[in-house]
Amino acid sequence: MSVDELFDMLKEQDLPYLKDWLSAQPPHAIADELIRVDAAGMALVFRLLDKGKALAVFEELDPSDQQEILAGLRDRAFSELVEGMDPDDRARLIGELPAKVARRVLAGLSPHERQMTAALLGYPEGSVGRMMTPEVVAIHRNLTVAEALDVVRTKGANAETVYTLPVVDDGRRLVGIASLRDLVTADTGRRVDGLAEKEYVSARATDDAEAAARLMRDANLLDLPIVDSEDRLLGFLTIDDAVEVIEAADTEDAYRQSGSEPLAGSYLLVSIRQLASRRAPWLLLLFVAAILTINVLDFFEENLAEVTALALFIPMITGAGGNTGAQSATSVVRALALSDVRIRDLPRVLWREARVGAILGVVLATIGIGIGTIFADFDLAIVIAISLLAVCTWAAIVGGSMPLLAKKLKIDPAVVSAPMVATLVDATGLIIYFLTARAILGI
Amino acid sequence: MSVDELFDMLKEQDLPYLKDWLSAQPPHAIADELIRVDAAGMALVFRLLDKGKALAVFEELDPSDQQEILAGLRDRAFSELVEGMDPDDRARLIGELPAKVARRVLAGLSPHERQMTAALLGYPEGSVGRMMTPEVVAIHRNLTVAEALDVVRTKGANAETVYTLPVVDDGRRLVGIASLRDLVTADTGRRVDGLAEKEYVSARATDDAEAAARLMRDANLLDLPIVDSEDRLLGFLTIDDAVEVIEAADTEDAYRQSGSEPLAGSYLLVSIRQLASRRAPWLLLLFVAAILTINVLDFFEENLAEVTALALFIPMITGAGGNTGAQSATSVVRALALSDVRIRDLPRVLWREARVGAILGVVLATIGIGIGTIFADFDLAIVIAISLLAVCTWAAIVGGSMPLLAKKLKIDPAVVSAPMVATLVDATGLIIYFLTARAILGI
Repeated sequence: MSVDELFDMLKEQDLPYLKDWLSAQPPHAIADELIRVDAAGMALVFRLLDKGKALAVFEELDPSDQQEILAGLRDRAFSELVEGMDPDDRARLIGELPAKVARRVLAGLSPHERQMTAALLGYPEGSVGRMMTPEVVAIHRNLTVAEALDVVRTKGANAETVYTLPVVDDGRRLVGIASLRDLVTADTGRRVDGLAEKEYVSARATDDAEAAARLMRDANLLDLPIVDSEDRLLGFLTIDDAVEVIEAADTEDAYRQSGSEPLAGSYLLVSIRQLASRRAPWLLLLFVAAILTINVLDFFEENLAEVTALALFIPMITGAGGNTGAQSATSVVRALALSDVRIRDLPRVLWREARVGAILGVVLATIGIGIGTIFADFDLAIVIAISLLAVCTWAAIVGGSMPLLAKKLKIDPAVVSAPMVATLVDATGLIIYFLTARAILGI
Repeated sequence: MSVDELFDMLKEQDLPYLKDWLSAQPPHAIADELIRVDAAGMALVFRLLDKGKALAVFEELDPSDQQEILAGLRDRAFSELVEGMDPDDRARLIGELPAKVARRVLAGLSPHERQMTAALLGYPEGSVGRMMTPEVVAIHRNLTVAEALDVVRTKGANAETVYTLPVVDDGRRLVGIASLRDLVTADTGRRVDGLAEKEYVSARATDDAEAAARLMRDANLLDLPIVDSEDRLLGFLTIDDAVEVIEAADTEDAYRQSGSEPLAGSYLLVSIRQLASRRAPWLLLLFVAAILTINVLDFFEENLAEVTALALFIPMITGAGGNTGAQSATSVVRALALSDVRIRDLPRVLWREARVGAILGVVLATIGIGIGTIFADFDLAIVIAISLLAVCTWAAIVGGSMPLLAKKLKIDPAVVSAPMVATLVDATGLIIYFLTARAILGI
């Protein structure tokens, strides 16, 4: 039986089989299956899992999917699960709960766990402080390698990682980074201070989580030390959380780029209502913006009535503009996300996109002459060709510059979506088309 | 002076300042700057860097950006740089070089490095074998913890990581995974075999690199052991390479989703010719597909001549359909990338999207009645409303199902782009619009 079939096992209520299956699968595989069944099925699966594995599976899920599960558990199982979570995962979950539920969950925790979680929740949403793990093994700079290894042995059990070891002074200020690799290979009598890397990369707890995650990727780090404004060590952003942050940011960008807000949960788990409500606002905005095209066509209605063949090519010309603009916008949005382009590159980007747009415009115009001649006549074909050249160049400039302008205005550049560029270029493209037609056809 | 200004320093030829700046910056920051200057500037910067740092900077770059730099170096500097690279990074670079250059580069390597690189190049492009590091420290199952730590100390210097330690038998077959953390905290007299995790996740060298990377993310691994068909250990996929694979896959999806092929290099470094040639094929295909819309409008030209007001709403209706379809396609493409949805979910996805499309259609239709009444009359407004409802539902179904069908046909689902869905829905949307108009207006 393949891993595909948890959904089927639940439908058939084959519980003994299901129990065997669950004990044979690793937690991440069970989590992958869980997000494809309904709330009742999830609750059933959770009752069949032993405590340790239930926790491991639970920690693999997104906060919104975790909420679905918690809603189906009794109070005791609920508290045990939350108490067992890592402080950073727990902070992320509680941060998304309604305030009343969040308070109840916090109150149910042991004092030590509550304190750690409350500290993380003190940082703003989207900051790296929310995502960091406070459970790290700090090494005092004056220790020897042998003493430091002892610290790792005694305190390491509760830490999320022992591979990156922050070296601190008396005031718990970060002064360097030692790796367990360095400690294991070094003379046991050496002082940690002499061994530690003093030129390390770190981030403030209030820094943006996505920027910190991309920094980790650029610098190839397993753990990024997080400090407060006085350089005191607070914790680590670990690479597994950084990967999650990057994936979530890429998901958000992908949704925004199609004119939609990202879902709070997995596709098959979220409600139809949520699916619709995440898409409706942008769709409505673009729909209202499309009134512009009605105005433009209304303005040129006489020309349209005189040469009805003009109408035939409207979708083709607006389509070509929209597609060219979407290509440019996507290139620039992605380049911004990867830090390949910055706001001050606007002039360079404009000049590049104008040339690319013109090249693409020439290519389409050449074919456009043929199409125009076949479906109408040569005069109209010339109108189509000139319009395509102008529309493509204009669309590439608009699509390439808008994400940079958005970023300058501190708006997420990814909201400059394919549909948004298309809608903006539609109206201007029609104006170009009809003005060219008037000039050439003399109407 | 901010890190923004390498570009300016090069323009002003302020070499002493530049040299100071280069020695103060970490390699990843220099690499970030390099991809924003031209080939001559990059060659100059490389001459100013000392050997070790030059190598570190070089390894931070994408293969295509690395090629730009190699083109500007003398033979000796060229060989030294390539000899110093990690085998997996080198394999990736050589894999992208023209065959003639690749042979010359391979011939210039020392026998040991050449052998390692040639082995990696034996795996198919896009496979995890191409991305793995062969430099791992294998531990024989019969060693004690103390002996294993000695192996780490003596052989660890050349390995990319010593945190995940593959445990092997006499035939170098993988039998378990030990972590350095386990070794450091365990009794030194214990046997490694008893300590090793026997239920580990691994991948075959011929497996798809993106699937292996996403598996690492799901299972929260730092290193994924890679084996051959007989379970013999070949190397590791390390998390930093996995992050790169995921980022590259997300970049590819982002480009494809806007109807464009991904660039082979950073946005500011690639040529205008490349920018245009990556966009032209899809743009042309969509342009030719748009001929369908001309045919449809041609077919209904009499109706259009009779009621010219019909033309006013063409961009609005096709736009609404295109936007709705793009939203659905993006949701499903991303859900597929994250394994939230599988091919066999097609019926569930269809049913979800049909309902979402209908809800969104009702919302737009309500506003459409108002707009239609203002710009035309109530009868036409009814035509518009019915068309919007039908077009949105249809577009959501098409947009949601096409990525799944593409995946079933083993085509990258991301090619089902916003522009492609828009183009496909344009023609059908127009047919719906005109047929509704004929029925209601009696034309």
